[in-house]
Amino acid sequence: MAKISEAEVMADHGIDDVFVAYPLVTAAKMERALRLSERIRLCVGVDSEAGARNMEEAAARRGTTLRVRLEIDCGLRRTGVPYEQAVKLAQLIHGLPHLDLDGIYTFRGNLLDGKPTLDLRSAGHEEGRLMVALAEQIRAQGVPVREVSVGSTPTALYAGEVEGVTEVRPGTYIFYDRMQAKLGVCSLDDCAASVLATVVSRPSDTLAIIDGGSKTFATDVQPDKEPLNLSGFGYIPAAPEAMLERLTEEHGMIRAQAGDGLTIGSRVRIVPNHICSTVNLHNRVYLHENGRYRAIAVAARGMLE
Amino acid sequence: MAKISEAEVMADHGIDDVFVAYPLVTAAKMERALRLSERIRLCVGVDSEAGARNMEEAAARRGTTLRVRLEIDCGLRRTGVPYEQAVKLAQLIHGLPHLDLDGIYTFRGNLLDGKPTLDLRSAGHEEGRLMVALAEQIRAQGVPVREVSVGSTPTALYAGEVEGVTEVRPGTYIFYDRMQAKLGVCSLDDCAASVLATVVSRPSDTLAIIDGGSKTFATDVQPDKEPLNLSGFGYIPAAPEAMLERLTEEHGMIRAQAGDGLTIGSRVRIVPNHICSTVNLHNRVYLHENGRYRAIAVAARGMLE
Repeated sequence: MAKISEAEVMADHGIDDVFVAYPLVTAAKMERALRLSERIRLCVGVDSEAGARNMEEAAARRGTTLRVRLEIDCGLRRTGVPYEQAVKLAQLIHGLPHLDLDGIYTFRGNLLDGKPTLDLRSAGHEEGRLMVALAEQIRAQGVPVREVSVGSTPTALYAGEVEGVTEVRPGTYIFYDRMQAKLGVCSLDDCAASVLATVVSRPSDTLAIIDGGSKTFATDVQPDKEPLNLSGFGYIPAAPEAMLERLTEEHGMIRAQAGDGLTIGSRVRIVPNHICSTVNLHNRVYLHENGRYRAIAVAARGMLE
Repeated sequence: MAKISEAEVMADHGIDDVFVAYPLVTAAKMERALRLSERIRLCVGVDSEAGARNMEEAAARRGTTLRVRLEIDCGLRRTGVPYEQAVKLAQLIHGLPHLDLDGIYTFRGNLLDGKPTLDLRSAGHEEGRLMVALAEQIRAQGVPVREVSVGSTPTALYAGEVEGVTEVRPGTYIFYDRMQAKLGVCSLDDCAASVLATVVSRPSDTLAIIDGGSKTFATDVQPDKEPLNLSGFGYIPAAPEAMLERLTEEHGMIRAQAGDGLTIGSRVRIVPNHICSTVNLHNRVYLHENGRYRAIAVAARGMLE
C-alpha cells in the first residue's frame, strides 16, 4: 500500500491497520499521517535522513510518536536507502525520540543480479537473505528490528521461506494477471479479474476492434519486452490465438482470423497484462459470486495529493 | 469524442451538440443514444452494415430518426469501413429510413504511406484529399454528404486547408503535450498542462524519485519509439537534462545529476508525453487563471459501459 491518500480512503472503509510503504517527506502529508495515526494503527515508510528529521519535528510538534519503517533498496533502484548506508540511517532514526522504528522493508520485484529474472526461487531467497542479514547488522548496533518485511507477488513465496523474515507484501496475488502467469506464479486460469469488452467493428477477417484501448487496459507492462515477452496487451481465453495488438485511447485492435467468433456486438473477456494498473483505470469493478454480480467503486485512485 | 457514456456526462454538464465518433453496435447503447438524442443534438458513428441495420431497427422501434455519420478507415486500421467499401455502405445507410446520414469522418493521425510520420503537412493534405474525393464518389451515387470531417491534432491544420473539408476534430490541442511538441505542432512552452510531483527520495546524485508513476503518467506513448524518439516519460522544464526514465505504479525514477535542485520535498512540474491519457488518470485537474487555482473533476472517464 503506497500513499497516505490511499491509507485515508482505507481508514474510511474501516481498515484499521495500514502500512504506508512509501517515504513521507512533505509537511502536509506528515500532518495527515499524524492525524491518521490517531485513528488507526499506522506505520509509514522512511528512507532518508532528511525525511526522518522532518518527520521527527512534525511528530514532536504534535506531541506524539509515529511508527516508522526503514525502506531498503536491494537493487531495484527505486525508493529506499542504499543497502550499504542502511545501518547508519537506522541508528540515526533509532535516536530520534518521536519516531518508533519498527523494522525494515524492501520491494525488489523479480530481480536477480540487477536484472529481471524468471528464476523466482533464487530471486526470492536472495531478497530474504539480504534483508535478514541487514537486520542482524542493525541489531548488532543495538537497534531493535522487529519487522523484516519483503516481497512482491513474484518473490513472496520464496522470500517468505527465509528464516527471520516476518512479513511478505504481495499485491497482485489478489487477482493475479497475465504477467504473473508468464512469471510462473499462477496459471492463466487462476486469473480472477478480466475486462469484458465488446467488438464494435470487424473491418476484415484479420482485424477486430473492441471498445477498450489504453484508457481501459494498462500499458505499463508492454508487449515484447524481456524477460516476459508478452504477446499483445491481454489474453483472450475464448480466442487464445487472437492478439490484442494495438491500443489507442478508446480502441483496441485485435489481430484476428476468420471464424474466431469475434463478430460485431459480441462480448470478449480479456485478462490484462497488469491488473493493478488496469483496475486503476476503472470507476467500478464487478464482483462475481454464485451467479450474482455486485458493483463496487474503485475508491483509492486518481490522487497525487 | 468517443463514447456514449462520455456523451451522457457531457449532456449532464450542459453541452447540447455532441458527435459520438465511435461505432454504436449493442442494443443497450443504441437505446441510450436514442434517449440522449431526444435531449441534445446528437450524431453517432457507424462503420458496418450490421451496426447500421441494428441501429435502424432500434430507431424504428422507438419511432424516431437518428443522425449518423459514416466512419472511414484511411489507413490507420482502426474502426471505419475500409475506404474501398465506403460508397456501397453509404448507399445502404442512405436507404435506411430511420437513419439520417449526415456525412463521413475519419481519424488517421500522423500517418503517411501507412507509417507514422513527422511530415504533417503532407499527411494532413493527403487525409483531406482522400476524404473529399470519397465524398464526391458518394455524392455521384445520389447520396448527400453534408459533412466531411477529418483531423487529429497533428494533421488538423493541414487537413482543414483542403477544399471540401467541413470539420476538423483535434483533441490534444486544448492542452498540447510533449508528443505534439515533438511532432512540431506546438512548442514545449505551449503545453498548458503539467503534473506537479514531489521528490520523495534522492538515494544518490544520479537518482531522484517522485511520487508519481504509471498511475500518474500515462504510459501509452512510450519512450524511444519511432518516429518520436521521446526521452523518458515526461519533460521537466526546471531540469531539462533530467530524464523520467522508469515508472512503477507509484514511483517515478528520474535520472538526475548533482546540483539539479531535485532535493527531497521539492516540487517538480512535468509535461507528460500524452496529456489525454494522463488527465484520464486523475480525479481532478487544477485550472490556473490570474494567480488562482480552481479544481474541477475529471468526470467522463473510467467507464467501459
